[in-house]
Amino acid sequence: MTPEIPAQTPATPPWTATILTLYPAMFPGPLGVSLSGDALARGTWALEARDIREHGLGRHRAVDDTPAGGGAGMVLRCDVLGAAIDAAAPSDDARPRLLMSPRGKPLTQARVRALSAGPGVVVVCGRFEGVDERVIAGRGLEEVSIGDYILSGGEIAALVLLDACIRLLPGVMGKMASGEEESFEGGHLEYPHYTRPRDWEGRAIPDVLTGGNHGAIAKWRRAEALRLTRERRPDLLGPGEA
Amino acid sequence: MTPEIPAQTPATPPWTATILTLYPAMFPGPLGVSLSGDALARGTWALEARDIREHGLGRHRAVDDTPAGGGAGMVLRCDVLGAAIDAAAPSDDARPRLLMSPRGKPLTQARVRALSAGPGVVVVCGRFEGVDERVIAGRGLEEVSIGDYILSGGEIAALVLLDACIRLLPGVMGKMASGEEESFEGGHLEYPHYTRPRDWEGRAIPDVLTGGNHGAIAKWRRAEALRLTRERRPDLLGPGEA
Repeated sequence: MTPEIPAQTPATPPWTATILTLYPAMFPGPLGVSLSGDALARGTWALEARDIREHGLGRHRAVDDTPAGGGAGMVLRCDVLGAAIDAAAPSDDARPRLLMSPRGKPLTQARVRALSAGPGVVVVCGRFEGVDERVIAGRGLEEVSIGDYILSGGEIAALVLLDACIRLLPGVMGKMASGEEESFEGGHLEYPHYTRPRDWEGRAIPDVLTGGNHGAIAKWRRAEALRLTRERRPDLLGPGEA
Repeated sequence: MTPEIPAQTPATPPWTATILTLYPAMFPGPLGVSLSGDALARGTWALEARDIREHGLGRHRAVDDTPAGGGAGMVLRCDVLGAAIDAAAPSDDARPRLLMSPRGKPLTQARVRALSAGPGVVVVCGRFEGVDERVIAGRGLEEVSIGDYILSGGEIAALVLLDACIRLLPGVMGKMASGEEESFEGGHLEYPHYTRPRDWEGRAIPDVLTGGNHGAIAKWRRAEALRLTRERRPDLLGPGEA
């Protein structure tokens, strides 16, 4: 008799992402596929995409208005967004409340690791010119930036944040987990990778990698990681490494 | 009689993104919705998601193999990826060939603006532990990083890059365009936004913004942008601004 496969539903509540957006149809999007999609189906994480417009005003469910003081674009109203946040995450909800914004603190792998170790996240996706500043203070939103460029809204930035967190949840990466060797985990960019074939278009795998000397391989990889970091990202180097 | 609406098909070829991925179903994903989705439907940009696995080897269409020298994870083969790139973008294709990778040069708004002004992009999405280093040199791939964190693959990073570029294409943002005032365009984070209602939960819109003095408003906004940049991103400050 085949032994019974244990149920995969975790005993603890899943890591839960609640997204506040004007485009709930964008979720799970790419996160419904591949490793994160499998993990979503298994219940390792849960996703709730809430439409901010449900809290819009009047028969047109207005969510934005023109900027005080003039200027281009529209601003998401604090009363609408505040009500949406209150409905999605009551004040006793322990999850961090993030606002994806180019004005935010740059996202790091350390912050990703901390978020993935917690109960989940509430993520507010801005659109238009921005959100009314008062809701940021009034609802304790942590502004997070995924990089120094401008997106059309916070939705794709939220997908980035979720993907980075989800892959660190227990059981998601399986055999592919190799946290210690990855870029940024050790403060250096990752060393170059090679696989079969040994020769391709006149380019060979470096001899050291096929020589079987594990000490030499480890030394080569450390040196290459340091070289690449020096060349490309000297800002990541520690004292004495430049 | 209602005047005929002019055809919206641009005379020049659209800005074209060719994506090489193991998950073509992730595209257009969120880019099929909202402003970028409308622009895709209008023909302002075009998307072609190509499955790398079509160039996989053997009856299982293998695309990866174990890393030379040992270690966790799998590496995308250079012969497979090289063939996929050659099929998608012949050598006379003028578009830049990007590889989304945490080892890459950090994406900036300046690079986004340059890419959006060109004919489009060819974007290779890595998966697993990485891609064989030789295909990067052999096919002239430009490694681009969207930030200092690890994703499960290059697909969501590609969505970020495309979204940032597409919103700058002519006609995409319409009235929402306000390039000059946005974060990073002027080297500073953006000033705070406010809109109606004037009072919310004891928090009022700053008086200067409702006073109608445009010079004072502009001065306040410049000062706030500088204050926020000093507090959050001193690395963005120019000489003499600290």
